[in-house]
Amino acid sequence: MAGTVAFAVTAVLVVIDRGIDLFGAAVLGIITAVGGGTIRDLILEVPVFWSVDLSYIWVALCASVVAFVAHSLLARRHIYGLMLYVDGLGVALFGVQATGKVWDLGFGLPVAPIMLGVVTAIGGGLIRDVLAGRPTLLMSRELYAVPVLLGCLLFVALLTYFPEQRFVGSIGCILLIFGLRAAAIHWKLTVPYWFTTKPAAE
Amino acid sequence: MAGTVAFAVTAVLVVIDRGIDLFGAAVLGIITAVGGGTIRDLILEVPVFWSVDLSYIWVALCASVVAFVAHSLLARRHIYGLMLYVDGLGVALFGVQATGKVWDLGFGLPVAPIMLGVVTAIGGGLIRDVLAGRPTLLMSRELYAVPVLLGCLLFVALLTYFPEQRFVGSIGCILLIFGLRAAAIHWKLTVPYWFTTKPAAE
Amino acid sequence: MAGTVAFAVTAVLVVIDRGIDLFGAAVLGIITAVGGGTIRDLILEVPVFWSVDLSYIWVALCASVVAFVAHSLLARRHIYGLMLYVDGLGVALFGVQATGKVWDLGFGLPVAPIMLGVVTAIGGGLIRDVLAGRPTLLMSRELYAVPVLLGCLLFVALLTYFPEQRFVGSIGCILLIFGLRAAAIHWKLTVPYWFTTKPAAE
Repeated sequence: MAGTVAFAVTAVLVVIDRGIDLFGAAVLGIITAVGGGTIRDLILEVPVFWSVDLSYIWVALCASVVAFVAHSLLARRHIYGLMLYVDGLGVALFGVQATGKVWDLGFGLPVAPIMLGVVTAIGGGLIRDVLAGRPTLLMSRELYAVPVLLGCLLFVALLTYFPEQRFVGSIGCILLIFGLRAAAIHWKLTVPYWFTTKPAAE
Repeated sequence: MAGTVAFAVTAVLVVIDRGIDLFGAAVLGIITAVGGGTIRDLILEVPVFWSVDLSYIWVALCASVVAFVAHSLLARRHIYGLMLYVDGLGVALFGVQATGKVWDLGFGLPVAPIMLGVVTAIGGGLIRDVLAGRPTLLMSRELYAVPVLLGCLLFVALLTYFPEQRFVGSIGCILLIFGLRAAAIHWKLTVPYWFTTKPAAE
Repeated sequence: MAGTVAFAVTAVLVVIDRGIDLFGAAVLGIITAVGGGTIRDLILEVPVFWSVDLSYIWVALCASVVAFVAHSLLARRHIYGLMLYVDGLGVALFGVQATGKVWDLGFGLPVAPIMLGVVTAIGGGLIRDVLAGRPTLLMSRELYAVPVLLGCLLFVALLTYFPEQRFVGSIGCILLIFGLRAAAIHWKLTVPYWFTTKPAAE
């Protein structure tokens, strides 16, 4: 839930300086918040999660509208910074929770839980960037998706070898992803030079 | 059906001045015409509507080819203007019909019918814009999606409180959406300044 | 399988000069390789093919990583040229195989097998281009999708009138698509002028 709010709010703030109306802001906020999970559920062939519990939609809608109305306030540096951390927490929660859901369904083990965990965490943001005409995060050097990948990978390893420690493991993986993201935000970490094909550019 | 034709034709006309071949035009025309409904049916987990009745595909294909061949004729101002109105009618028909379909399935009431109505009406156009590299309508200030939202909202309200008036209500909502769209086309209405984040720009 | 490798490798090579990290390369490689088939399976409402046989994911992942690491080698003209031909073979295999699969399911005959064959063959590449912010192939004049369309069309005609010749027919259609693609690559064929709306441009 906290993740849903954070996703919707950061989505609105990210696109808002491009000139957008309230309706567009609400649509992008909702899509960002539920898009990744929708792709996951379509691939899993289970009912889409927000059709079972509509509160996700309501929360995302309200968060988007509040963010739109209050954007001049939220865009102030320290509040926006805070939102980035909440967004990092949202990514962590979404990724690990999705990995656990796919694992429980026994779907395409052991690779699919990791893949769909990453998709759930970053899919909504990808759709948002495509619809808003921004470069997607796949093309940026920010450390965004890699922490999610590591966390989901570790969580699957834990589920495989220490299934009885699931709860502790999920907390640990969430903290790992969030910690890496927080460090990336705080020190403005990027993917190391020798990992990219254009070290000095941009 | 009229909506399918209008969607395919306007899609081809919108992308045609970017330089496109017959195949690309046909693909974009078909995607625009059936894309929104396909997303809706995937989320509903019902068979995709055009697999049950292939005539939608044929109509969209023929309309796209005709529009491509006759584009120099259709691009004349008054014929293109006429098409915009037919497109507005198509949006109205698609949105209200989809809302009714989701309602009948009892899927995620009361929010999902409205959401999926809007998605059906504008989803095809969004995919078209993304594939053609144009800014999507979410980023423009044209009054396009808001009338659909209002119409679907009103239709769900009618279905809730006056279910026995469904037929009359659906006609009314279609006329409402079409009327708002027609007014927006005729007077070139845009989203009011105080609703957007970039009042004077563009 | 050869197609999967070729798709992943060409995907990485295509985006690599835009500056991308290893993670982005792997994600785009996998999406390009399995994206088209995923859309097909979602529309067919059958389990997604890579959840049944995970080796597709592994192959695409390894091919992407190898392509990323070895990109300076692969980008040499003649090796990249070779990859384009393998990619052409991949498109042919994917398209004809998908057409056969949809045909066997009796889904929306006779149009849907052709449509979904084309979608399977080019869908992954479309998603890749959208996520990477490149113009999609629908907007280019390269002869890419039209050979697939012709091959799938012919294959459906063969299945209708000579079902007992299926194996021979599928080989023939694969060779037809591959031959047309190879000719297009070798002689740099483009869509004829009188088929596009911007003859002299670009």
